[in-house]
Amino acid sequence: MATKISRNAKKEEEKETSITERCRGFLTAPVTDISVLEEKKDEMSTKMEMLIMETQAEFCKALEDVEGGTFKVDKWDRKEGGGGISCMMHDGNVFEKAGVDVTVLLGCLTEEAVKQLSGEKVLKGKDGKLPFCAMGVSSVIHPKNPHIPSVHFNYRYFEIEEEDGSKQWWFGGGTDLTPVYIDREDAFLDSFTQEEKDWQQLRRGRYVEFNLMYDRGIKFGLGMPGCRVLMSLPLTARWEFMHEPGKGSQEAEMLEVLRNPKEWV
Amino acid sequence: MATKISRNAKKEEEKETSITERCRGFLTAPVTDISVLEEKKDEMSTKMEMLIMETQAEFCKALEDVEGGTFKVDKWDRKEGGGGISCMMHDGNVFEKAGVDVTVLLGCLTEEAVKQLSGEKVLKGKDGKLPFCAMGVSSVIHPKNPHIPSVHFNYRYFEIEEEDGSKQWWFGGGTDLTPVYIDREDAFLDSFTQEEKDWQQLRRGRYVEFNLMYDRGIKFGLGMPGCRVLMSLPLTARWEFMHEPGKGSQEAEMLEVLRNPKEWV
Repeated sequence: MATKISRNAKKEEEKETSITERCRGFLTAPVTDISVLEEKKDEMSTKMEMLIMETQAEFCKALEDVEGGTFKVDKWDRKEGGGGISCMMHDGNVFEKAGVDVTVLLGCLTEEAVKQLSGEKVLKGKDGKLPFCAMGVSSVIHPKNPHIPSVHFNYRYFEIEEEDGSKQWWFGGGTDLTPVYIDREDAFLDSFTQEEKDWQQLRRGRYVEFNLMYDRGIKFGLGMPGCRVLMSLPLTARWEFMHEPGKGSQEAEMLEVLRNPKEWV
Repeated sequence: MATKISRNAKKEEEKETSITERCRGFLTAPVTDISVLEEKKDEMSTKMEMLIMETQAEFCKALEDVEGGTFKVDKWDRKEGGGGISCMMHDGNVFEKAGVDVTVLLGCLTEEAVKQLSGEKVLKGKDGKLPFCAMGVSSVIHPKNPHIPSVHFNYRYFEIEEEDGSKQWWFGGGTDLTPVYIDREDAFLDSFTQEEKDWQQLRRGRYVEFNLMYDRGIKFGLGMPGCRVLMSLPLTARWEFMHEPGKGSQEAEMLEVLRNPKEWV
């Protein structure tokens, strides 16, 4: 009898091995203790944390191969709960700035945040506190070459625990490309003029404006004490008063498309 | 009898001459037509518009003397009412970027803006419309030399007209210096190292963040359709991930003072 292992128990064991082993492939230990992840291995939050850690490790590896460089990895704790793992490369041959971040935030929502979240149904936590868990993987890549667009992606998970212990969760995210020029066939030849580089710097300025003024992820992060945000900003940017590109230039063509979007497909 | 001029009439005539003449000293014609200013010469809004135009002209002249350059002057109209005069110098020997702006905005407040303004007393305009006039002179100067602080000032006037035609107005404003280094006796010797210049660029980045995220003037401007804002941004800025100045360095000293303000006086 002692040697008989039920099918379920066997499955459990396999999964346990697999979490610990999967963690070996990450850039650092995850934000949540491995023992806790193992304990809660069937919960959605654990599956998500494993997924974002894996994504970070794989994506960083791919970028390092392209750059021929190494990410600076920084693990940080948030005293209010949770923390993150920031990976950053600066001033490389290919990337002006490349960052890949994992963030895991734990805490209780403020009343104001609860109001914003609650739709028709009012959310209620235990003793007036609504515990939440927010996590995600995000990346911003500003390439050196102005003919290669900036890339941004963010995939996130948000979970709250109601009074009766039941959980609600949301997934979100997306990817966007921010081109500096519309198109150039030799984008990957790594050849560009000073004028093209200057135009990229001006467009980076617009990127900074958007990030600081409108980006919802940034706003969320800034509202969370102890959070690292703004890794998305470029290494350098430029603002010129009333800059207008020359008529018929590539730069003018780009602005035209931004102001009057085309149906490309 | 025809030759007798009353004391009041004489005073009027003096003032009329004076408005037209004062306008000759400005960089362009004021936003409001001179004929309108003359007609409404005793109103607070006219006095303020004359004052900000004068301030702009005098301040630009003084900066041009220092730079040995000339401002680019740009007069713009806002189709919703009012306009502005933007003066800008770029990439000079002394100033990386120097701007001096006059803005005069006319229009009707949105209901939301009225709510924000109304304290205990609810403001009411004619037919549900609350006409306003907002004007000011502002300047942002980012010097080239990292040992000279950035300078910003803004003096403004806001006026609304209530249902019964009575006016309410507010004055506001202030000046601030944003140093990159705490102190250096030879600040005006125009000598600085590349390291000092880099530190300035990082501090400029923080300036941009503050401007875009917290500055109330910027927020007001962005909420006004047809308004030119963001002239306050530096020509160039830089963001480095987790930059920490060396221990005991001048840069570290500056950060310490920013984080833990001293009572200098």
